[in-house]
Amino acid sequence: MRRFITVIAAFLCIGAAAQQNVGFRQGNLKSPVVNEDNTVTFTVNAPAASKVEVFGDWAVGHGYGLMEKNSDGLWTFTTPVLPSEMYTYRVIIDGVIGLDPLNPFTCRDVGTVFSIFYVNGGCADYYQVHDVPHGSLTQEWYHSDALGDVDRRLSVYTPADYGKSRKRYPVLYLLHGSGGDENAWVELGRTVRIMDNLIAEGKIEPMIVVMPNGNAVKQAAPGETSENLSYLPVMTNQLKGYKTGSYEESFDEIVKYIDSHYRTIRKKEKRAVAGLSMGGFHSLFIALNHPEKFSYVGLLSAGLNTAFLDMTKPAYKDMEAKLKNFQKEGYDLFWIACGKDDFLYQNNLDFMKTCDNIGFEYTYHESERGHIWANWRQYLLLFTPMLFR
Amino acid sequence: MRRFITVIAAFLCIGAAAQQNVGFRQGNLKSPVVNEDNTVTFTVNAPAASKVEVFGDWAVGHGYGLMEKNSDGLWTFTTPVLPSEMYTYRVIIDGVIGLDPLNPFTCRDVGTVFSIFYVNGGCADYYQVHDVPHGSLTQEWYHSDALGDVDRRLSVYTPADYGKSRKRYPVLYLLHGSGGDENAWVELGRTVRIMDNLIAEGKIEPMIVVMPNGNAVKQAAPGETSENLSYLPVMTNQLKGYKTGSYEESFDEIVKYIDSHYRTIRKKEKRAVAGLSMGGFHSLFIALNHPEKFSYVGLLSAGLNTAFLDMTKPAYKDMEAKLKNFQKEGYDLFWIACGKDDFLYQNNLDFMKTCDNIGFEYTYHESERGHIWANWRQYLLLFTPMLFR
Repeated sequence: MRRFITVIAAFLCIGAAAQQNVGFRQGNLKSPVVNEDNTVTFTVNAPAASKVEVFGDWAVGHGYGLMEKNSDGLWTFTTPVLPSEMYTYRVIIDGVIGLDPLNPFTCRDVGTVFSIFYVNGGCADYYQVHDVPHGSLTQEWYHSDALGDVDRRLSVYTPADYGKSRKRYPVLYLLHGSGGDENAWVELGRTVRIMDNLIAEGKIEPMIVVMPNGNAVKQAAPGETSENLSYLPVMTNQLKGYKTGSYEESFDEIVKYIDSHYRTIRKKEKRAVAGLSMGGFHSLFIALNHPEKFSYVGLLSAGLNTAFLDMTKPAYKDMEAKLKNFQKEGYDLFWIACGKDDFLYQNNLDFMKTCDNIGFEYTYHESERGHIWANWRQYLLLFTPMLFR
Repeated sequence: MRRFITVIAAFLCIGAAAQQNVGFRQGNLKSPVVNEDNTVTFTVNAPAASKVEVFGDWAVGHGYGLMEKNSDGLWTFTTPVLPSEMYTYRVIIDGVIGLDPLNPFTCRDVGTVFSIFYVNGGCADYYQVHDVPHGSLTQEWYHSDALGDVDRRLSVYTPADYGKSRKRYPVLYLLHGSGGDENAWVELGRTVRIMDNLIAEGKIEPMIVVMPNGNAVKQAAPGETSENLSYLPVMTNQLKGYKTGSYEESFDEIVKYIDSHYRTIRKKEKRAVAGLSMGGFHSLFIALNHPEKFSYVGLLSAGLNTAFLDMTKPAYKDMEAKLKNFQKEGYDLFWIACGKDDFLYQNNLDFMKTCDNIGFEYTYHESERGHIWANWRQYLLLFTPMLFR
């Protein structure tokens, strides 16, 4: 009764010879190990190497460790005690930079893949999975007429009770920076876990979080467009359409898409827009050009370095008048956060001076450190509890 | 008018000092480069190394290349002409195995991260993004009473027109192998792109694809459970609950969840279950125990090596009687696919002999090669056009 398929579909190619390729880690070695005192020990098995280094984002100007060969022939380095955070790092073996060979957990930031680890006992607890009700994350595409009659990808978080109720929800539009895409707040920002955990603790209102792609000429993240792997990720400021106003002007398409596909509360009091770096700049002008749409604005290490931009573009011109009008129309929160070591720190101070001069109200949070994901995750922990209350 | 936030939320930790950590690739070097003749050239910049190798899944027993140092001091290797596929590979620098330092695109398989590339002009075209209508992918959690009163994660593909219509859709339940999880068919299987592209060409019926986690004692993929990074991924056969029948017996919970949360056609003629390796074994018994639920079954390199299992477990016992009953209840397709080099090849032949002995009808597709993702992607290209017609 056996029937053999003899017709091979035209698209099937069977010439490739290959083999079982499941990979395993090396023996019982483990790296990194977060020790009980919150120091972290890295181990690299590189017997032929003459120099092994590790560097990561645990200290100013990169955390750095020159590894030492121990009696087992393994290279090790232990960090000082680290505060609770998620950290990214890489190792250098005889000058070649790569991942920690023993760590299966990675994150891509712009064009580079990093190994990652968490130090628990503080904010990093919010970046991890706990036994709480979990929301959903959907990667989907909306159509943009404004950005070239194309489909564009976005990530949407819905809270755990979304699928169990018929309730409507407020929406946070959360925008990435010049190095990012629609995956950045999910992967590096740990937004899904942060939202799940803060909602479970009752610290924030259950909300939908929309994370679009903010690169005007890119439909999706690297590898997710029809360029596939031939586009190697670069910073957005190397792409056309960077801070020309086209993205901000197209943003209403996203709000309309979300309002028509999700159970949102379609009121400005239940809409927030916030972003980091370039996304902070985007958020500012998306809000200023749509005072009827957003009552909460978050500028996180915002890219307010406007000197090199054409600020006469329709989206950007008359900023002070737009700020005054935004205040006149009313809002609940205009939040500015920046780190003291950020290269955009002075730009943010200058922007606040402009606001002060015209009596525009805002709330400022100043943190340590610079233009790093640790700050943006922590800003998200601070910002979201203030929304929609 | 400036208001400073002075209350720092208890969960905020600001002691960590760190720095801008955006990474870039090295200069203008690119690796790999797929050449016009479909050979592939790898380049590694490792001036201090004395031996650089590359290996991947492009040949039996691993494709292998001993790289040579060229006049620029770069190590290079060019493969033979490769058939169209997606390939995974790693490089070895003086004995240390890692990613291609120049390639930002990666995939995790079990506990190992691989660099990836595509060779176009055949089935790999289906694994990539094209300018066609795109479906959505949702990562969400369903509740399982049977597997310990816990939430468990699954991935759900909905076709591009799902959000634009009120139509109901058939469902393919697509199960991973012992090395996988709910991400495996998405990442390594490229299911979202395969479905988008086949639907766009009219080669398959628009369908929902549900990709659950098939590890009875794991709620989600490594890094996505409350163990977070302390669980280092292993093969399922090293975990409790492996092929004990508990997963198969719990499967009805997934069908009920999907039927109550998605616009499905709730008829056996519009339901398929298929899986690779362990997932093929799961599919067999999920179907045999629920002849009223599934009219399409796909065993892809199925783990039919039953000698070491307790086949008297309720889910597995009386297999021949269940096969006979399944045939009596009626079905549209029972599809078996296996590669000639697969370590499960003989088990699959034995199973088909059992089927032949009792007159159980099936369709068999035999391919080249072994227990590899190239086969499973190609089987998906072959299997899905036969569904729901």
